[in-house]
Amino acid sequence: MLRSGIVTLTTDFGRRDIYAGLLHAVILGIDPRLRVVDLTHDVAPHAILEAAFLLESAYRYFPPGTVHLAVVDPGVGTARPLIAIEAGAALFVAPDNGLLTVVWQGLADEERRAARIVELTEARLWRLPVSSTFHGRDILAPVAAHLAAGRPLEEAGPPREGLTILPEAQPTITSPNTIQGRIVHIDRFGNCSTNIPAAALGGASIVTAGGHPLGWLRRTYADVAPGQPLALAGSDGRLEVAVREGSAAETLGLRVGDPVWVRTPHRTDR
Amino acid sequence: MLRSGIVTLTTDFGRRDIYAGLLHAVILGIDPRLRVVDLTHDVAPHAILEAAFLLESAYRYFPPGTVHLAVVDPGVGTARPLIAIEAGAALFVAPDNGLLTVVWQGLADEERRAARIVELTEARLWRLPVSSTFHGRDILAPVAAHLAAGRPLEEAGPPREGLTILPEAQPTITSPNTIQGRIVHIDRFGNCSTNIPAAALGGASIVTAGGHPLGWLRRTYADVAPGQPLALAGSDGRLEVAVREGSAAETLGLRVGDPVWVRTPHRTDR
Amino acid sequence: MLRSGIVTLTTDFGRRDIYAGLLHAVILGIDPRLRVVDLTHDVAPHAILEAAFLLESAYRYFPPGTVHLAVVDPGVGTARPLIAIEAGAALFVAPDNGLLTVVWQGLADEERRAARIVELTEARLWRLPVSSTFHGRDILAPVAAHLAAGRPLEEAGPPREGLTILPEAQPTITSPNTIQGRIVHIDRFGNCSTNIPAAALGGASIVTAGGHPLGWLRRTYADVAPGQPLALAGSDGRLEVAVREGSAAETLGLRVGDPVWVRTPHRTDR
Repeated sequence: MLRSGIVTLTTDFGRRDIYAGLLHAVILGIDPRLRVVDLTHDVAPHAILEAAFLLESAYRYFPPGTVHLAVVDPGVGTARPLIAIEAGAALFVAPDNGLLTVVWQGLADEERRAARIVELTEARLWRLPVSSTFHGRDILAPVAAHLAAGRPLEEAGPPREGLTILPEAQPTITSPNTIQGRIVHIDRFGNCSTNIPAAALGGASIVTAGGHPLGWLRRTYADVAPGQPLALAGSDGRLEVAVREGSAAETLGLRVGDPVWVRTPHRTDR
Repeated sequence: MLRSGIVTLTTDFGRRDIYAGLLHAVILGIDPRLRVVDLTHDVAPHAILEAAFLLESAYRYFPPGTVHLAVVDPGVGTARPLIAIEAGAALFVAPDNGLLTVVWQGLADEERRAARIVELTEARLWRLPVSSTFHGRDILAPVAAHLAAGRPLEEAGPPREGLTILPEAQPTITSPNTIQGRIVHIDRFGNCSTNIPAAALGGASIVTAGGHPLGWLRRTYADVAPGQPLALAGSDGRLEVAVREGSAAETLGLRVGDPVWVRTPHRTDR
Repeated sequence: MLRSGIVTLTTDFGRRDIYAGLLHAVILGIDPRLRVVDLTHDVAPHAILEAAFLLESAYRYFPPGTVHLAVVDPGVGTARPLIAIEAGAALFVAPDNGLLTVVWQGLADEERRAARIVELTEARLWRLPVSSTFHGRDILAPVAAHLAAGRPLEEAGPPREGLTILPEAQPTITSPNTIQGRIVHIDRFGNCSTNIPAAALGGASIVTAGGHPLGWLRRTYADVAPGQPLALAGSDGRLEVAVREGSAAETLGLRVGDPVWVRTPHRTDR
């Protein structure tokens, strides 16, 4: 795969510390022509599932051949493997702790069949000595930079079958016409993003979030009066719970992990 | 106008989400040679007037031909127009909701006469399909990138006369020697920036903010004792209310929108 | 010294304001080919010592010839000098208020002897007129950009002997086998970084932080059970106090400035 020369960063490092800046340092030190884009460093600490959704929502907006580095790594210093994946016209570098669950599940079947996974074992691509508490800086960032600079995936380590998948990432179909999902991210405005793909939903769907009935699926915020809650297809392609010109999280008391139900009354004949 | 190849971003997206990163993605996807500078993504949610002042304070520090993308867009999904402006040796792309008020009012007369405004209607420059809730990603960012890459303004849409101006942006002259303004931004240190241009003020001006008399206009923080409040010309060229080595917002209980008066006692003979 | 073309930024400006963006603007305005990396803008306001440690922890990860601009400047507008230093294969631009203490103390002896310090007096390299409250934008950033673009250090001003050193930066040896240091930074995860170099510590060292006995120095977080506190060599090469999968700051009630003791029982024979 050709490379775009771009490396994106998705971490729970925050920006108060220098950890994010050190990723930039290490990457530019390997190839100063690379472009580094901060996707976010403000994933909630250790929130692997949240990061997994954010990464999947973002990566297809970047040029093909972009390397996506994700570091939410509560297991740093334990034996959990580090992996790199080439799939879906992109490359991913991350701990194998479920961070790539949503990217993997979102691949088309043929993309998943063509995907290649390696375990990062080739210390020639690392920054030595490796700290026992910051593999992001010493292993993941150097490998991401080498891949972005054009090195083939195989040079990072041997092939590996499969990767860690978080079972809670996908919604469940609880009856022929009911889907149960959950809130996976709350944005700055209080909009609540879920793990329910919006494309699957008919316009007649009825949504309930955290016990609050939200009525039919709407098209945009302006379809309800200011201050009123609604459910709509979010800009990430998933069902979103919002309040027009307000915060759904505050108004409805919603939190990450809260359940969301979608009922499609007239699809009982499927 | 020649282009600098730089696109700046001013939004209320915050950095906890990936929205800002998606603007980078879309811009680099259109031309990977562009440089994207985050001016701020932490405008208070939906605070159009605050963003309008921040943008005007910043844009003249960038090289001529820089494209400034501003997205504070509570009306997304409604029929409010999106516009692009070429003026003051820069280009601006924003919803037409008052975000460009302060830039427009700060133009010299000849700059304002030479300015050109278009409404964004040319979907050839957009990212399709357009989400109903994220025009920043799907319309404004692609148009900004195309302009920064050298496309003429006219290709983005037809000319438009005038733009939305927020009446509360400018201070009012309430008597021959009194100006009434307001606090428009409070910075991290608690310094309170106002909408009163400092150049217009004589050294004998007496300032009152939120009911607190601040005495004469000072030159710098060190002109008063630590912990004492003062008024001075801020680095943005506007009257600023500060506390030396402290927070004016906390010490004086000031908030965005609070009134500020400037009285110039000896100018009654104007 | 050759230049890397990179300028890093370490400030207490926060990201809610446009101050950090203005540094980017001024630097790119002087040479659009420069790369600007935000190390952090979220140093606690006016926390010079904290910034001094962060800068030292970061700078050696950047390519040689990188220019590091640091602005934590409570004395802006007073007569405190501004300086630039070439040392340790890097360049630094900062107010002379102690910000470069830890970088200076961390230099090898021969690096310190070869170091050159100048006072910034050459207004030809500045942005004029100079604001009395924002020397970061008008003096420090332009000088940093000119140095990064290849100008020799001498063009920024005359040589200067020595620089301001903060005495509290270094730990003290309170008995032949006891070192007393302090917490100098608390990261987003609640890990507490100290000013005690980890390389100097034997594995048999016993650590106490804020009155809490932490036992022996460990190798990584996984060496204790989840929720348990520990002391280990942090990724910055200094003693770190942590709680596995938790926040040491919250669990142990630690704050920046709190004392940390290291006792090495079997070194009484030194």
